[in-house]
Amino acid sequence: MIKTDILIIGAGPTGLFTVFEAGLLKLKTHLIDALPQPGGQCSEIYPKKPIYDIPGFPEILAGELVDNLMEQIKPFNPGFTLGERAETIEKLEDDTFLVTTNKGTQHNAPVVAIAGGLGSFEPRKPPIPNIADFEDKGVAYIIRDPEVYRDKRVVIAGGGDSALDWSIFLADVASEVTLVHRRNEFRGALDSVERVAELSKLGKVNLITEAEVKELKGDDHITAVGIKHKTKGEIVLDTDYFIPLFGLSPKLGPIGDWGLEIEKNAIKVDNSYDYQTNIPGIYAIGDVNTYKGKLKLILSGFHEAAIMCQSAYQRIFPDKKYVMKYTTVGGVEGFDGTKKEAKKEVVKAIN
Amino acid sequence: MIKTDILIIGAGPTGLFTVFEAGLLKLKTHLIDALPQPGGQCSEIYPKKPIYDIPGFPEILAGELVDNLMEQIKPFNPGFTLGERAETIEKLEDDTFLVTTNKGTQHNAPVVAIAGGLGSFEPRKPPIPNIADFEDKGVAYIIRDPEVYRDKRVVIAGGGDSALDWSIFLADVASEVTLVHRRNEFRGALDSVERVAELSKLGKVNLITEAEVKELKGDDHITAVGIKHKTKGEIVLDTDYFIPLFGLSPKLGPIGDWGLEIEKNAIKVDNSYDYQTNIPGIYAIGDVNTYKGKLKLILSGFHEAAIMCQSAYQRIFPDKKYVMKYTTVGGVEGFDGTKKEAKKEVVKAIN
Ligand SMILES: Cc1cc2nc3c(=O)[nH]c(=O)nc-3n(C[C@H](O)[C@H](O)[C@H](O)COP(=O)(O)OP(=O)(O)OC[C@H]3O[C@@H](n4cnc5c(N)ncnc54)[C@H](O)[C@@H]3O)c2cc1C
Ligand SMILES: Cc1cc2nc3c(=O)[nH]c(=O)nc-3n(C[C@H](O)[C@H](O)[C@H](O)COP(=O)(O)OP(=O)(O)OC[C@H]3O[C@@H](n4cnc5c(N)ncnc54)[C@H](O)[C@@H]3O)c2cc1C
Repeated sequence: MIKTDILIIGAGPTGLFTVFEAGLLKLKTHLIDALPQPGGQCSEIYPKKPIYDIPGFPEILAGELVDNLMEQIKPFNPGFTLGERAETIEKLEDDTFLVTTNKGTQHNAPVVAIAGGLGSFEPRKPPIPNIADFEDKGVAYIIRDPEVYRDKRVVIAGGGDSALDWSIFLADVASEVTLVHRRNEFRGALDSVERVAELSKLGKVNLITEAEVKELKGDDHITAVGIKHKTKGEIVLDTDYFIPLFGLSPKLGPIGDWGLEIEKNAIKVDNSYDYQTNIPGIYAIGDVNTYKGKLKLILSGFHEAAIMCQSAYQRIFPDKKYVMKYTTVGGVEGFDGTKKEAKKEVVKAIN
Repeated sequence: MIKTDILIIGAGPTGLFTVFEAGLLKLKTHLIDALPQPGGQCSEIYPKKPIYDIPGFPEILAGELVDNLMEQIKPFNPGFTLGERAETIEKLEDDTFLVTTNKGTQHNAPVVAIAGGLGSFEPRKPPIPNIADFEDKGVAYIIRDPEVYRDKRVVIAGGGDSALDWSIFLADVASEVTLVHRRNEFRGALDSVERVAELSKLGKVNLITEAEVKELKGDDHITAVGIKHKTKGEIVLDTDYFIPLFGLSPKLGPIGDWGLEIEKNAIKVDNSYDYQTNIPGIYAIGDVNTYKGKLKLILSGFHEAAIMCQSAYQRIFPDKKYVMKYTTVGGVEGFDGTKKEAKKEVVKAIN
C-alpha cells in the first residue's frame, strides 16, 4: 500500500504543480495517471504545439511546459503510479482515503486532490460489433512494446500522426503492414505523410484508403479483418493483429461515481475558499472542477493548486499554523536534500 | 484625456499580465504606476533575486519575469502613465470612470482594474523636522537626472545598495560626495561595498559612519546639514544637496479613500466570481485584494487577472457572448498587426 500526504489523481500540469506547492509546505505527494507519461492533455494531445498564455512565457511548447514542471518538482520527489486508472475510493475509519486503481494498486492518504482534467484518457474504439471479444487477442489500441509485432502481419487503422508513425516504424519490424484509412487524406506531420507514401510505393506498407475495417474474424485470436472499400466493396485480409489508432478521448469515468457533486461533467467545488468538494478532504483542481466563472486554463489550475494545498495543510495539521514564506526569502528545501536559495545580501564593514 | 477599455492602476506583474488577458478579448488597456518603471515589487525591491514558485520556471530572477511579461504583452501595445500616482476617481454620467493622477493626468475607462499591490511606492523619509520645507530645494529622495549634481556638493544618507551605488556614480560627477550612514556596516552587493571603501581611501567619497543627518540649514535652498556622530558629536557640513536613500515603502494611499471596502489594508473583492469590489466596474486583483484564503503570490494575481477580464468584457459588451478559444488554437492577434499562431497540421493526400 502506497502512503502519502496528498494523493493526486491526474498528472497533468495542475497535478504536477500541486507537488511543488505541497512540497513547500513539507507535504509528500503521489500521483496516479491513466496515461503512461505525465503531462495530461499537454503531453497527450499537443506536446509540439505552442501555448501563448502561460504567464512569463511569450511562447512555450506544451511539452516543454511539462518538462519544466517536472524539473521544478524534482526536489520534492513525488511518487508515480502511471498507466493505471483510479477506480474506487473508500473512506477508512481513521478518516483517511483508500484509492484503488484498475490494476489493484492501493493508495492511502488523508487528502485526495483530484486533478483529473477532462477525465482519464481512453482510446477511441471503432464501432465494430465484436471488437471487445478480441481485446488482448490481437486487438490493441495502444502500442506498448513493438517487439510483439516482429515478423507478424499487422493491420493499422487511422489517418493521424499515430497511425502514420507506427506504420513507418512497424514497416521494419512486422512481416506485413497494412494501413487502412477512411479517407484519402492524412492529417499529420508532412514528413510522416511523405514517408508513408514512399513506403507504399516500395511495397513496404500496404495502403488501403477510402476504406474501413468493419468486421473481425477469428476464434481464440484474430485471424482476419473484413474491410469495406468505397469502390471495391468487401475485402478480407488475413492478419495477426489489428491496431486501431483513432486517438484517445478523455472520460470523467469512475470519478463520476464517487459521490461527488457533478455539474456539466465536472466536479463542483467551493471556489470562495479552498476548492474542496462536497466530501471534506477531497479537493478538485484544474480542468476537472467547475464553479461560477470557471476558465479551463492552465494558469487557473496553478492558482487552485496553491490555495488547495494551504487548506490541505490545515486538515492534516489542525493544530499548526503555517506562516507563508516567499520562495525568494525562504528558498526551496527539497525532500531529496537539495536546497535552492537566493544569494544573501552582503553585510560588510568599511574601516 | 487618455481613453481606454480597462484602466489598470499598478504595473506590477498582475497589472502587466492583465494587459495580455484583456488583449485576448480585444480590450485595450492603459497602466498607471507611481514608479518610473514597470514591474512593481519585482522591479523595485528584488529585481536580481530568484523566484522559485512561478509555474514552469524552476528559477527565474524577478527582473527577468518582468522582462518576459513586457515581451508577452507587447503585441497589445498598452499605454503607460509612469511616475504618477492615481489620486482620485470619479464616476461620470455615462457610467465610466475618470481617474486623475497627482500630476493632473486624466484617464477615462468603463472598467478600472486596481492592481496596486501593497500600494504605491513612496520614499522612506528620515525623521528630520523641517525636511518637507526643503523638498525640491536641495532635498531629493530619488535621483532622476544625475547631471543636476554636476560640480555640486552632495550629501547622501543610507547604507544599502542605492546609497552605495549613487555614491560611486556621483563620485565622478559631483565636486564633493559625502556618504553618511548610521552604522559601520553596509548591506549591499560585495562589489559596491568594496568600491566605496576604495573611493573613501582615495578621498573621492567622504565617508561618515555611525552618524545621522539630524538637521537641515538654509533659506531658499539647503546650504548645510547638521550631522550627529556617535563619538565626535555635532558636525556641520556645507552642501548643495541632501539625498536620503532609505528605500521606498508601499502605501495603499489615496485608493483607501475611494469608497472601496477595505480590510487588513487591502480591498475586499468577490472571489466567488470575478474579483469585483463593492463598486461595480472597479475590480481589485493581485496583492491589493483580500478574501478568505487569499495568498499574496504572483501566480494568484495571474489567475485573478484572467477571471477579471472575462467579467470586464461582459460589462463593456453586455450583449455579446465571448467564446473562449485556447491561445494554441486561436493564436494571439496583436493590436500592432502581429499574429502568433501554431503551425497548422498538414492535411495531405497520398495517391
Ligand atoms: C489542443 C489544445 C490546446 C490548448 N491550449 C491551451 C492554451 O493555449 N492555454 C491554456 O491555458 N490551456 C490550453 N489547453 C487546455 C489545457 O491543456 C488544460 O487546461 C490543462 O491540460 C488542464 O490541466 P489539468 O492538469 O487540470 O488536466 P489534464 O491536462 O486534462 O490532465 C488530467 C490527467 O488526469 C488523468 N486522469 C483523469 N482521471 C483519472 C483517473 N480516474 N485515474 C487516473 N488518471 C486520471 C488523465 O489521464 C490526465 O492525464 C488546451 C487544450 C487542448 C486540447
Ligand atoms: C523580497 C520579496 C520576495 C518575494 N518573493 C516572492 C516569491 O518568491 N513568490 C511570489 O509569488 N511572490 C513573491 N513576492 C511577492 C510578489 O512580489 C508580489 O506578490 C507581487 O509583486 C504582487 O504583484 P502585484 O502586481 O499585485 O503588485 P505590486 O508588485 O506590488 O505592484 C503594484 C504597483 O502598483 C503601484 N501603485 C499602487 N498604488 C498606486 C497608485 N495609487 N497610483 C499609481 N501606482 C500605484 C505601485 O507603485 C506598484 O508598482 C515577494 C515580494 C518581496 C518583497
